[in-house]
This record gives sequence, C-alpha cells and structure tokens, in this order.
Amino acid sequence: MQVSEKTGATEPTPIRGQRADRARRVADILRHQILAGAVAGTVPGEQELAAEHGTSRNTVREALALLRDEGLIDRAPKLGTRVAARKFDHGLDALLGLQETLKGHGTVRNEVRAASTITAPPAVARRLELAPGDKVVYIERLRFLADLPLSLDLTYLAPDVGAEVLAHDLETTDVFVLLEQVTGRSLGAADLALEAVAADPHTATTLDTPAGAPLLMLERLTYLDDGRPVDLEYIRMRGDRITMRGSLTRSTPEWKVL
Amino acid sequence: MQVSEKTGATEPTPIRGQRADRARRVADILRHQILAGAVAGTVPGEQELAAEHGTSRNTVREALALLRDEGLIDRAPKLGTRVAARKFDHGLDALLGLQETLKGHGTVRNEVRAASTITAPPAVARRLELAPGDKVVYIERLRFLADLPLSLDLTYLAPDVGAEVLAHDLETTDVFVLLEQVTGRSLGAADLALEAVAADPHTATTLDTPAGAPLLMLERLTYLDDGRPVDLEYIRMRGDRITMRGSLTRSTPEWKVL
Repeated sequence: MQVSEKTGATEPTPIRGQRADRARRVADILRHQILAGAVAGTVPGEQELAAEHGTSRNTVREALALLRDEGLIDRAPKLGTRVAARKFDHGLDALLGLQETLKGHGTVRNEVRAASTITAPPAVARRLELAPGDKVVYIERLRFLADLPLSLDLTYLAPDVGAEVLAHDLETTDVFVLLEQVTGRSLGAADLALEAVAADPHTATTLDTPAGAPLLMLERLTYLDDGRPVDLEYIRMRGDRITMRGSLTRSTPEWKVL
Repeated sequence: MQVSEKTGATEPTPIRGQRADRARRVADILRHQILAGAVAGTVPGEQELAAEHGTSRNTVREALALLRDEGLIDRAPKLGTRVAARKFDHGLDALLGLQETLKGHGTVRNEVRAASTITAPPAVARRLELAPGDKVVYIERLRFLADLPLSLDLTYLAPDVGAEVLAHDLETTDVFVLLEQVTGRSLGAADLALEAVAADPHTATTLDTPAGAPLLMLERLTYLDDGRPVDLEYIRMRGDRITMRGSLTRSTPEWKVL
C-alpha cells in the first residue's frame, strides 16, 4: 500500500504490478460505465481518470487504448476522448424478439435472404421432434437497427407453423410475434446456448464487420406453451453492437426480470 | 425445389444460393451437434454429411473448414475429421461458481495473480453501495480446468466480507462458496451483462490464446440474500472453451433450470 504524491489516494498494490494488468482493470470499469450510459459523450480527462482509479496517466492511456481498439471510444488530439459506438441491450431474461427488445431505440428492419421449404437435416428434425425426411421452413434474415447491421439469423420452423409464417411480413415483424399470431398460442420456454466466436470472412462481409471480429452466437430452441418445439435458431450478433443482460438468483431456480 | 440425383432428397432452394451461405448453415448444425456431444470422436464422412444436409461435398468441405478454423475439429488426410476440443458448459441459469458448474469435468485450480485491499474506484464504490474513498478487496485469478486456462476473473469484494475471504484458500475454492461461508448467508440474486470481445494482446498471453481471439466477457454484480451487493466481477472466458447454457420462459418472468 502506498500513498500517491499526486492524488493523495491510497494506491492499489497488486501482487503482479504489470501496467497492462492495471490498464485492463481500469478499462473494465470504464467500459461498463460507457455501456451503462454513465459516461456519455465525452470521457473524463486522463488526469481525472488517473485520480479516480488511483493509477498513473500512462496506465489510463493504455486503458483508453484498449477501449479504442474495441471501438467503444474515439480519441483525437484536442477533441479528447468520446464515446464512439452505442451498444444495445438484449434482454437475456425475457423471451423477446429483437424488435420488441429494441423498442425505443429505432426500427428493426430485416433483409430476408432466404425463405423456403426444405427437407430437414436429421439433426434439425430431431430438435424439432419431426420424423426423418419431414420438411421445415428455413428463413435467413440479416437484421438492422436503422442502417446498422446487428445480427444474422438462421431459422428453422416446424412445417405447418412455418408455412403460415411465410405468408406474413418477415421484413418488419419478429418471428416470435408471428409464431404467436399464426398458432394462437403463447411461446412457452426456450433452451439457449451462448458462445463467443470469431466472424468467418463471409459472415463478416454480411455483417459489415472485419473478418475475425468477435460475435455473440446464440443457438435457441423455442417451444410453444404446450411444450412443442417449433423454432430452432442460430443467431450471430455483432459483438460491438449487442450486450445481453439479465438477472438470476442462486437459492431458487428462478430468474427475475431486471 | 429440386430432387438430388445422388440422395433422392429434396434440396434446399435458398433465395441467395451462395455456397458460403450453405456452408454456414451446415456448419451451424454440425457445431451444435459437436458441442452437445452428439458427434463425438470421428465426424461422419463428407459424402454422408452431404446426403444428410442435402448439399454438395464442396459445401460440406467448406463447412468443415469453418469449424476447423474455430478449433472445434481437426482434419487430416487419411485420418479423417475428428472432434478436437471440448467446450465446457457453464450454467446460465443457476448462480454457480466455476468449480461447482464444472464438477465432474475435473478440478478447477486458480492462480491468484492479485489479492489486496485497495481504495475503491468511484464506479466500483457506487455498484457496491460503498461511500467514496471506502476500501474494497481486489482479487485477480487465472482459472484452469486441469492445465487448461479457462477464464481470467477480476473481483471486487465489499471490504468486511472481502477481508474474511482473503483469509481462505483462493486457489481451490470458488469465491461464491467462500462468500456464503464467511457471511453465513446465501447468495441472493445477480445482475449480469454478457458480451463477445476480442482478446487484447496482454489478455491473450495470459489466457494462452491468440491475440484477437473471441472471449465471452461477463460482468456480474452479486447480492447476498438480504439484498446487499458484495461481489462485482469482470470475467473473461475463452470463447473456444466455454458455452453458457440456460432456459427461459416468455409468459412468466421466470427462468427454469435445465
């Protein structure tokens, strides 16, 4: 423990004192302030941040470089440091479509890249509890918030439900909403798996992001409230555009909405 | 719609027929079969996969190349295609520590890189509902399953609880378990934010992964069952090692454990 001459604050004394470790620590706190909107517009100056975090200006500079490399901030001489990109929160708790979850941020528009009936690959048939050789409806959508590509969604629907969904407007309506409309039922539960993957070159071009850029990859199997699985999706979200948020509890096996 | 001469199956007719789109579709289904353990050891041959997915061997080859680039499979002439890496499931539903969630897969070992009392940066003090200038306990751990680095965890604990946690064995015990031990209370809820980010060079070296590799980044604020926030964590998980899994429901704001 040592007292800084400059700030008078007690300094952290990590066991390993590499500057890169300190920079990461500062960057983590800052990035979540930026994401939460606590730091909007212009980011505080280096000196102020150094005092806040009980660290040196060099460490702050390195932390800001990390956030700049992620595309969260822009740094320009004289103009200072500005919040560059907005990331949007996708609720992890509620089973909401993109349009529903981003209400208030703008209009979600879907470029429908494929919409057709195909023979279900065996693995898809199993997940949707169909017989081998059954058909499924396959839909591929590139999803935008205004002009910003957010995600690429590959969707397999049970054939009866899917045929009805195909008759509706896929460009401006969430599949979740259409599923409830055409079946007259509510959605029940969903099983999901969430990963971080690198964008392959073709996907990167489609999502207008550099090859290798980190993507949040969501596989989600959604059931109607009668327990029937109807919707298997593979969703790639741009890592620099989407944060998934939720709450959970330990003692009871229940999640609560934020 | 057209019938394949080779397989007799009805072929997909996507609106945009690029092979890269078809390859991505095949890769998505295969990757989740691999993750779910449905395809263990040796992956079926190209011809078999082409028939299953109603597509060409060239498309299958391109799909397998995508999975190889992600490190999920190895391909070698004569030896065929094998599942290369195992990813581990981290429960998204239950509030479990890594050691608890990976029970059965091996022993989690923590390399404690920092463990000290520091002045809380203002943003951390606010999240933990501390007064400006209050202390926090800062712990930095690199976490291994056997010899495999899985995650780098930066942890800020409320000072009273943290001081007691520091007196315990951080190398083999989850912080969640220690929190319940030293407070005599159960953990209550947690707020979490999940993102995909690229590994900066320093973090990449620490996690023994290439710079730019995709990481699952989790920010989690955990409360005791009396509603007091005690544990703020920034967790970077290797994207090629961890899948987060959970279930959720639409109609009621509750999550169910798988």
